[in-house]
Amino acid sequence: MICQLSHIGIAVADLDASIALYERIFRPSAIHRETVPEQKVEIASFSVGSVRIELVAATSPDSPIARFIAKRGEGIHHVAFESDDIAADLDRLDNAGIQLIDRVPTNGAHDMLIAFIHPKATGGVLMELCQTRTTGSGRT
Amino acid sequence: MICQLSHIGIAVADLDASIALYERIFRPSAIHRETVPEQKVEIASFSVGSVRIELVAATSPDSPIARFIAKRGEGIHHVAFESDDIAADLDRLDNAGIQLIDRVPTNGAHDMLIAFIHPKATGGVLMELCQTRTTGSGRT
Repeated sequence: MICQLSHIGIAVADLDASIALYERIFRPSAIHRETVPEQKVEIASFSVGSVRIELVAATSPDSPIARFIAKRGEGIHHVAFESDDIAADLDRLDNAGIQLIDRVPTNGAHDMLIAFIHPKATGGVLMELCQTRTTGSGRT
Repeated sequence: MICQLSHIGIAVADLDASIALYERIFRPSAIHRETVPEQKVEIASFSVGSVRIELVAATSPDSPIARFIAKRGEGIHHVAFESDDIAADLDRLDNAGIQLIDRVPTNGAHDMLIAFIHPKATGGVLMELCQTRTTGSGRT
C-alpha cells in the first residue's frame, strides 16, 4: 500500500549552491549528504515536517539528472511515496496497466528500495515508490 | 515558520480523466473538489498520509495552469508548504532577498491564505506558502 509522501526530489546543477539557497528558505536543523552510485547522483536532504526535500545533483554526464537538466533545466525531478510493500504495489500497478520504469526495485538513498513509475502513466509526473529495507518484503 | 509540506499541485488538462487515473494509483478514500475563482482553477484533492495531492485544471484560457500546460505540458506545477505565520515568513524571505510573486497573501483552496515564491529564486521550483485562516495572523 502507498502510505505517505516520502520526499520530493529536486534536480540541481550545483549541490553546494543549492544547499546554501535552501538553507536560506527553510533553515533546516541538519542536512544529510550521500552519494548513490547506482543512480549516478549525489544528494543533500533535509526534513520539513514529516517529508524530506532531496536536492539531487548528477555525478556523471550520463546521469538521469544531467539529462533532465539538459532538457528541462533545474526543478522538481520526482516525488517519492513510501510503500509498506513495494513488490506488491508494483504488481498491483503493473496489473492495472500502469507503465513502470522499474518492474523490480533497485537501491536508492537512505538504504531504501526504490522503483519508478513512468511519467507517461501519470500525466507527466515522475513518481518513485520506496520502501525502507526493514519494513517488509520489497526485495522478494 | 515553514512547518510542513501541505500539498503537491499537479497541472492537469482534464480533471475527470486525471481523477480516474490517480484513483487507480492511490485508491484514495475520498476526493475533495473545489473551484477557486481567484486562481481560475478547479481542483480535485486527496490525502496520501499527511500530504494532499492536488490535481489542478484551468477554468479559463488565461489561467496560470492553462499557460503552464501550453508551455511545459501536464506535470508538477507547485509544492506548497504550510506556515504558521505566512506574513512573517514572507517578510523574512523578502528581507533575505528571495524573490516573491506575492508579497501579500491571496485566497487559495481549502480556505487558506497563499503566496508564491518565484521559481527564479528556488532553482526552478514554484513554491507556495499557505496558512489556514484559523491558525494565525496571515492577513495582517
